Formats: sequence, C-alpha cells, structure tokens
Amino acid sequence: MEKVKALVADHSAFDSFHHTVITRRSLRADDVAIDIKYCGICHSDIAQVEMIDSFQHPVVPGHEITGIVSAVGANVKDHKVGDRVGVGCFVDSCGKCKYCKAGQEQFCEKGVVAVFNAPDYEGNITAGGYSQSLVVKDHFVLDIPDNLDLADASPLLCAGITTYNPLKRYGVGKGSKVAVVGLGGLGHIAVQFASKMGAEVTVLGHSESKRNEANQFGATSYEILKSDQDFDKLAGKFDFILNTVAVKLNLDNYLKLLNVNGIFCFVGLTAEEQEFNILNMFNKQATMTVSNVGGIAMTQEMLNFAAENDVRPMIEMIGIDDVPEAYQRVIDSDVHYRFVIDMSTLD
Amino acid sequence: MEKVKALVADHSAFDSFHHTVITRRSLRADDVAIDIKYCGICHSDIAQVEMIDSFQHPVVPGHEITGIVSAVGANVKDHKVGDRVGVGCFVDSCGKCKYCKAGQEQFCEKGVVAVFNAPDYEGNITAGGYSQSLVVKDHFVLDIPDNLDLADASPLLCAGITTYNPLKRYGVGKGSKVAVVGLGGLGHIAVQFASKMGAEVTVLGHSESKRNEANQFGATSYEILKSDQDFDKLAGKFDFILNTVAVKLNLDNYLKLLNVNGIFCFVGLTAEEQEFNILNMFNKQATMTVSNVGGIAMTQEMLNFAAENDVRPMIEMIGIDDVPEAYQRVIDSDVHYRFVIDMSTLD
Repeated sequence: MEKVKALVADHSAFDSFHHTVITRRSLRADDVAIDIKYCGICHSDIAQVEMIDSFQHPVVPGHEITGIVSAVGANVKDHKVGDRVGVGCFVDSCGKCKYCKAGQEQFCEKGVVAVFNAPDYEGNITAGGYSQSLVVKDHFVLDIPDNLDLADASPLLCAGITTYNPLKRYGVGKGSKVAVVGLGGLGHIAVQFASKMGAEVTVLGHSESKRNEANQFGATSYEILKSDQDFDKLAGKFDFILNTVAVKLNLDNYLKLLNVNGIFCFVGLTAEEQEFNILNMFNKQATMTVSNVGGIAMTQEMLNFAAENDVRPMIEMIGIDDVPEAYQRVIDSDVHYRFVIDMSTLD
Repeated sequence: MEKVKALVADHSAFDSFHHTVITRRSLRADDVAIDIKYCGICHSDIAQVEMIDSFQHPVVPGHEITGIVSAVGANVKDHKVGDRVGVGCFVDSCGKCKYCKAGQEQFCEKGVVAVFNAPDYEGNITAGGYSQSLVVKDHFVLDIPDNLDLADASPLLCAGITTYNPLKRYGVGKGSKVAVVGLGGLGHIAVQFASKMGAEVTVLGHSESKRNEANQFGATSYEILKSDQDFDKLAGKFDFILNTVAVKLNLDNYLKLLNVNGIFCFVGLTAEEQEFNILNMFNKQATMTVSNVGGIAMTQEMLNFAAENDVRPMIEMIGIDDVPEAYQRVIDSDVHYRFVIDMSTLD
C-alpha cells in the first residue's frame, strides 16, 4: 500500500476540490504501477463531481491518464519499468464473459470497473487520474506509441476512443461522406480520425469562428445549419453523421441529411427526451445508434492509428489548481479543445 | 396492348371500388405476361386508396401478386409459359446504379417503379394486381417454388420480404433472442421466419386470444406488456426487436428490453412523432432502425426459405367484390391474418 497525493472533490461545488492523500493498493502479480504525468478533463468527470452530494463520498476524478511505468508485478509480460503508457475509462472486468472475450470489456456481464468513483471487485471506490500514481491490472494498460506525446495522448483515452470506435464499427473509410455535429472536445478529434480514414468530412457547426480550424483538422466543408431550408440543401448528403453535442437536436432535420442506409450516431448525450418521425428514416432505411467508448484492443488500435496518422488533440495545458476554473470553462464551452492537467503541478 | 378486367377505386371511400377494363402494354423483348391467380391485401394498398382524392386519378391496387406465365418476350431466359411466378412491390428500376447493382432496387437512384399507382419510366401510372393479368420486366418476376401454394405465396411478396429482410440483415439465427411486437399480418410471418432461422422468439402482444396461435407459429413465449413493471421484468432479454405495429409506442420501455448491442427495428410505421431518451440506448449501445421491403434477389431467397421451411401465411380467401369490406376489416384489425383475393372471381 502506498500513499500518494491527489486532488479530491468533497461536494458538487467545484470549490470543494482540495489536495489530499489517497492509498494505492500493493502491487499484485498482474498489476502495473504508473507514475501519472498527464490527465485530461472530460465532461463525464464533471458530471460525476456534480453528483457527489448524492453519492455521499468524495471523488478523485480522471480517466484520461498517461504516465510512465514505475513497477510491474511478477506475471506482467507486456509492460516494463520506463514504458510510456495510458489508462482510460476502466481498470477491471471479469475477463471471462462473452463481451470480455470479444474485446468489449465495457459491457462485461460482471460489470466493468470504472477507473474512478466506482466500486472495484473488492468493494473499494476507485480513485482516478487526478493523482500522482495508479496501480492497474496489466490488461487495462495501453501502450503509448513513441511518436505520440504523453500530453496529447491523454484525451485520446476517452474522447479518442469514443469517436474512433463508431467510425470503425460502421466502416467509415475511403469514399465515405461523414458529417460531424459539433467541433469541440470530441468533434475536433472525430474530424481528424474520419479524415485520416479517407472520408470526406463536413463539420456541422454553429459558430463561424471555427471554420478555419475545422479545415485544419481535415474537414472539406463547414456548414452552419439554422433554418429548415439550410437542412434541405444538404438532404441525402451523408452516409454517417456523428453527433458530438450534448443537447437536444431537431432530429427530423438531421435524419433528412442521411443517404440510403445512412447512420446517425450519438456520442453526445443528453437526458432530454428526443423526438423523431419514423417516416424520415423509412425511405432511406436510416439507422440511429449510439457508441459507448470502446474496448481495450480497439483503444490500442486507436492510439496506434493516431500515432501513425498524426491525429493530435488540440489541448490547453493547466496546473492542478486550475481544475475548478477549467470545469466551469468546459461547462461554458470555453475550452480549446480539451484541458489536460500537468500532474507535476501536484507535487 | 391488351384490355383486361380490373377492380379500380375512383375515390378514397371504399364503396367507390368498381369493375373496369384497363390496358396492359404489348409484350417487350424482356417482358413476362402473367395471368394473375391471387393478390394479397396489404395496409399500404389501403393507405394509397385513402389518398386517391389528392392523387386525382383512379387507383388499381395490389402488390402481392401470384399467377402463371402466359407469354414471354424474345429475350426472356429465366421464365417460360406455365411457370408459377410472383410480383411484389416494384416492377422496374434503372438496373445500373449502385443500389440496383447491389440488389437493393428499392433504393434505385433513378427511382424504383412501384407496381401500382406510380409513374413508370414512360410516365404511365402503373396498375396493380387487382386485375386479370400483368406485363412485367423479367428481372422483377419471382419464381414460386413448387411446394409453395400460389395463394399462400402472395402475402409473402410484401409482408414476407418486409419481415425476412431485417432478420437476415441483422444476422438473426441460432441463439438469437428475438421479440416480435404485434401478431398481425406482418407479425405472424415474422415469428415463423425468426423461429425457422433458429431464434428464440417472444411475441409481445396485447390480446390473450392470440397466445395459442403465437405458439403454433413458433414463438416460445407470449407476453402482454402493460405496466412499466411488466417491461422491467423483461429488461435486457432481447437481441432484436421487430416492431410490426403501426402505432406510437412507449419507446423508452421497449429500448429497456434490449440486450447489449441490441437492435429495435420498425417495419410498422406511423406518422406520429416518436419519443425516446438516448440514455436508454447508451449503456447497452442499442440501435434503432427501419427496414424498407427488400430487393429482388432477397425476395427470391425469402420465397425459397419459406418453401423449404414450411413458412405459411395464415390467410382468409375472399372474392373480388369483398374488397371494400376487407379493407374496413383490416383497418379494424379484424383479419386472420391476411386477406388474399381469389382473382378468378373477377371473371
């Protein structure tokens, strides 16, 4: 057991964040210990902190973690001290059910163990990446390719896999006509992935100010859709639409944009009830679906793809004490495009 | 050009049906002429008749047509006089676009020509199967296998392919857990197909009176879901739900019934706006989709499958003058389970 520094929130108010000391478990035979160098900030960190008052326990967030291996257990073969590694959304699963065997650990029948704020299989609440170090079962440790910066890599561990997985699952590639709704933390990575997969990518944005960056990320066009007529002009243009925004949309208008057998995929989530007319799906045999992160093997594939194809999140580096302000800026959509915490500032 | 007897509706009121004489085109080199023996009645016949007043022209419905080949054009190789054949929802497409080449003629880029009440490529409005004979391009003529009764085969040409296609498209087979919502014209065929494909089939019905027949069609269970608790009891039980009812459902309840990567597919349509909460799709990575009939090759495959696996619609045979009453009974859900017109009664 090792005591390590961490940043913890006691209440849902962001000013309840304070430095603390947590305990990491002693290294087991199949464990890897990691000195954390960077940790990204994701909407879902914030959502968890906002719910602390109902959890009735403090939370150490962070699920976009990169660092250097500091120790390995006796049975670990895939990693060694000094390796550049990452840990994403989850840190354990049963390893035996059909989903684990199929590389979809996120759907483990025993229940996947989230990297933070979730009971592990011993009943202890996990503590995430806003901390100095982490001890994780080998299987859940990703290799960060040499030419991928550790800071750049961290948002890929959630935002990256969240967008890469559905693009792969639905066969986006050369010739695909893809639209990405929203150019934010998820969207700016989705555009790069889809473009590097060979697709023709259109960003459906809401602010003229992002047009140039959309093009830099690989989009061939940028459209601001306001009126029904704006949508009608793009009717039938897209094979795949990835919705990265977490607000209720006029789905009937977006469904019109799909081509035959087209797919509208949500990765931006909202609890608001959505509405649509099935007749807007019927003639084109359209599909609506969602994507829920991705398994470990797919996450490694995503990291390798990012390294090989120069996919890089655009990040704002912050210190650990900037977290409360950063949370508010994420809520205000005032981040360009993803915050990453330099964990050396925790010392 | 040949003059043939037909039943036509002049107005949306069903009592406007009357006998008439229509003209069928002279046989072209790639045409097949068919003496019509049976024609099924489908909801979409009725929907078209109900819209006649806005079309401002009379309609000869019918798109579930079976009969005997009476003549073939010079270039026809696949059919000969005396063959038992069928014609379904469409009678022409460009044959050149990517959808036609992929066997998805229903999405032809030039526009598929519906078998009735649609302009063909010469601009003439097509007349359907409520008539003595039909002249159709060879490619759109299906073979009815020897051991499939011509009357039984007719509902398969729309209701059959409408349900078979999505089951095949989404890989329903041995081990699949399938629910069919509604046991009517579509549902009673869907249950048979899914069961014969090896799936475990549950019917989600609303009337106790259909329980026994559901089992005869191959369902292993029959559930009547009323309260939220009824739905909760079946949460996560199904890989694939085929919705055959044309009313607005409580989608959030139905989405709960899906397992990981589960699919909810609409073939029953309503113009009413549907509502759902994306969070009910997210954890299980669920999908909502629709299915729009099926191409010619898939329709032939479906007929062969039905013949080989003893899939038989349960039909009520009627005479041509019973059509107005039958339409009203379909609207009242008082059909057991599909009407088929004996076209010899037109003479």
